[in-house]
Amino acid sequence: MDLKSYLVEKRETIDNALKAYFEDSEKGPSRDLFRAMKYSLFAGGKRLRPILCIAGAEAVGGDGGKVLPVACALELIHTYSLIHDDLPLMDDDDLRRGVPTNHKVFGEALALLAGDGLLTEAFRIMSSDGIVQHMAPATALQVINIIATAAGCAGMVAGQVADIQSEGKEADLELVEFIHRHKTGALISASVKCGAMIGGGDMEALSAIALYGDNIGLAFQISDDLLDLEGDPGVMGKEPGSDQKKGKVTYPGVLGADEARCIQEKLVRDAVTALDVFDYRADPLREIAWYIIKRKK
Amino acid sequence: MDLKSYLVEKRETIDNALKAYFEDSEKGPSRDLFRAMKYSLFAGGKRLRPILCIAGAEAVGGDGGKVLPVACALELIHTYSLIHDDLPLMDDDDLRRGVPTNHKVFGEALALLAGDGLLTEAFRIMSSDGIVQHMAPATALQVINIIATAAGCAGMVAGQVADIQSEGKEADLELVEFIHRHKTGALISASVKCGAMIGGGDMEALSAIALYGDNIGLAFQISDDLLDLEGDPGVMGKEPGSDQKKGKVTYPGVLGADEARCIQEKLVRDAVTALDVFDYRADPLREIAWYIIKRKK
Repeated sequence: MDLKSYLVEKRETIDNALKAYFEDSEKGPSRDLFRAMKYSLFAGGKRLRPILCIAGAEAVGGDGGKVLPVACALELIHTYSLIHDDLPLMDDDDLRRGVPTNHKVFGEALALLAGDGLLTEAFRIMSSDGIVQHMAPATALQVINIIATAAGCAGMVAGQVADIQSEGKEADLELVEFIHRHKTGALISASVKCGAMIGGGDMEALSAIALYGDNIGLAFQISDDLLDLEGDPGVMGKEPGSDQKKGKVTYPGVLGADEARCIQEKLVRDAVTALDVFDYRADPLREIAWYIIKRKK
Repeated sequence: MDLKSYLVEKRETIDNALKAYFEDSEKGPSRDLFRAMKYSLFAGGKRLRPILCIAGAEAVGGDGGKVLPVACALELIHTYSLIHDDLPLMDDDDLRRGVPTNHKVFGEALALLAGDGLLTEAFRIMSSDGIVQHMAPATALQVINIIATAAGCAGMVAGQVADIQSEGKEADLELVEFIHRHKTGALISASVKCGAMIGGGDMEALSAIALYGDNIGLAFQISDDLLDLEGDPGVMGKEPGSDQKKGKVTYPGVLGADEARCIQEKLVRDAVTALDVFDYRADPLREIAWYIIKRKK
């Protein structure tokens, strides 16, 4: 299969679905709020989480179109986390994907509220009438629960806390794994898992998908670490070396780049092996796993 | 009925339920996150939203115990909004309910993340296994949708944006009503509405409750405005006059205190009239409406 055209096609589907949620939002007293939300939502994201959600559904023989609202919600949650993460009181970043960060354009108060709005809107979308056209209410509830768990104080938020609290400190493998699995891994893993669940995967399928998701979630954050160390600033849209400047705990920092790459490759291999129970319909998931190692931004 | 003992009893029920969600959270890398979340959650809140949720269920003849998870989620959402609102990049408040605000104790980054954690945890709780013991999954989804709508960019977050954007500006009645209905009214109204929905209220009951909720939501924020103008600092746990200092748009600011009180009384009277379709079981809602006018903090 041709991964590149698969990604382009899915990205367009997702972008169109995202845009539809924000039509007619440019009027009234909330127009600046919506402008701020849309600014970061349409700032060139890879849409990895929504694509994994769709590919997860397809891998178990389900219809990728049915997961679209959940896929969009995942991107809203990811975007909120980036906006809050970039704030001066957190990582204090001026640039993301080559453009000024949200608070640089809209101010810190509006950026904070745009993040809050995106997070809450994600749950509104996942509980809307559109959802129950595609799945049983009980399934929708389970999906909301998996995503809230992955995004919240037992998942992404916990990872963010450990990340900022460990800045400048000596770290071991256990700590960096905790940070990465929570900060990035949990939501990535939840994305593919929820896709497969909505797609109608049975217990065996779901547990294979869970193993795949946990592995690529961690592998993805390791590639983020490696790119920050040795990536091309022109391709990435930001200067490398920011992790080191901030004293961030990273895999290459704890183990060295070679060892980090080694672990990453093992994670991806194990992820792909977990997919052996599926036929060709899991090819996108397989290709995405290998892409994580090769990606340049 | 004795409102005071009703409030004390319900508050204890809610506090116990809230505590149960945070048992055993003092260990591991997330202990500071949980400490920060609990600090604001147990900082002496009135539990108005959860109590309204329970009273809403009871008014339609339902079981108040069944709404408890949703009632707790409402308090988590309310608490998150206060933590974010107090941050230096927003209202920059040092004191709330007589104690230092979250970021004063835990720092701004942890306060931001504690807010994010509380908001996300609210949706985790409302989608958990405990919920479907008490209501149909379809009802739970509807409740999540009503609350997300009230809390998000068409509700509370929109109100916050209008609130900060109008600081120091000339305001008219339309703007102050928009701010108050969104910033405070929406979630208060959703609280009693969701209670009545889970309690099994029919269409007529739900529309009466909705009218009640919209009216007391706005009346409650007017009493906040009035207390900030003329309240007793010893009772409130903070200095009055902060709205004026910050150039906030308020009802007494736009109309004068007497006219604001007049509107508030009409709102409360209309709210109580809307309850005429219910028997004595709506007495707590009736008493709470009158209490909004009389409250001292």
